[in-house]
Amino acid sequence: MKPENIKVILDGFDVYLDHIAVATKSIKNSISFFEMIGLEFDQEEEIVKEQKVKVRFANIDQRSRLELLEPIEEDGAIYHFLQKKGPGIHHMCFKTTNLPQMMEALKENGLRLIYDTVQTGAHGMKVNFIHPKSTGGILVELSQDA
Amino acid sequence: MKPENIKVILDGFDVYLDHIAVATKSIKNSISFFEMIGLEFDQEEEIVKEQKVKVRFANIDQRSRLELLEPIEEDGAIYHFLQKKGPGIHHMCFKTTNLPQMMEALKENGLRLIYDTVQTGAHGMKVNFIHPKSTGGILVELSQDA
Repeated sequence: MKPENIKVILDGFDVYLDHIAVATKSIKNSISFFEMIGLEFDQEEEIVKEQKVKVRFANIDQRSRLELLEPIEEDGAIYHFLQKKGPGIHHMCFKTTNLPQMMEALKENGLRLIYDTVQTGAHGMKVNFIHPKSTGGILVELSQDA
Repeated sequence: MKPENIKVILDGFDVYLDHIAVATKSIKNSISFFEMIGLEFDQEEEIVKEQKVKVRFANIDQRSRLELLEPIEEDGAIYHFLQKKGPGIHHMCFKTTNLPQMMEALKENGLRLIYDTVQTGAHGMKVNFIHPKSTGGILVELSQDA
């Protein structure tokens, strides 16, 4: 029952939820809630300078993680998201095995990507984002291991 | 490194992400996007009369699922969410093995639950919700198998 307006479908890819990202004014405060319900966080925060945030991860299923994002300066996408919408879920990220091919397929289907080419994220990951206008209101990140 | 304001922590519980729920005006249209990136949906939609929605699930990790929610009448929480905020992520749900004990622990820590007692959800699941004011801006559902 594939909708007829789809030209290219990426069957056979190993696609799974890599993480859900939550924008917060204070990782420390947000952790206290999630620890209360039993999640266990990585020991260390990481700084992602390019995105002007610090991040902390917890496992939420076999491969899926929760990512908390806190701005480290008064600039950057997460800072502006918090200013505009307040704390909450910022995006979800699906991991794939062939990001360039997926990007081509999405473009062929008329979807709007945030970047024209693959970007380099934390740990050398390949990343791109699909515009919320093309997903039904959700910012979706796509990633592939380095 | 447990924050000092937590009185009770639920160590040793098997807590994992059961689902992320996305509110949409059209499950059919949302599916077309998620199928494009390779997710596979259950064959059938389900009607959840109590919540005035129809729902459709896809697997996104070993136990975690994506849930699409579409109102079936002009009333109910999802209809009003769409009117107010537009389509997007509505809540995330963590599954636990002892919901009543978790509810007690959360109350002891001063968190605000939506219901005073365990509710019955689809398939006889035990459910409750934590108010976004107590989680840093996210509506969090807690559930336990029937």
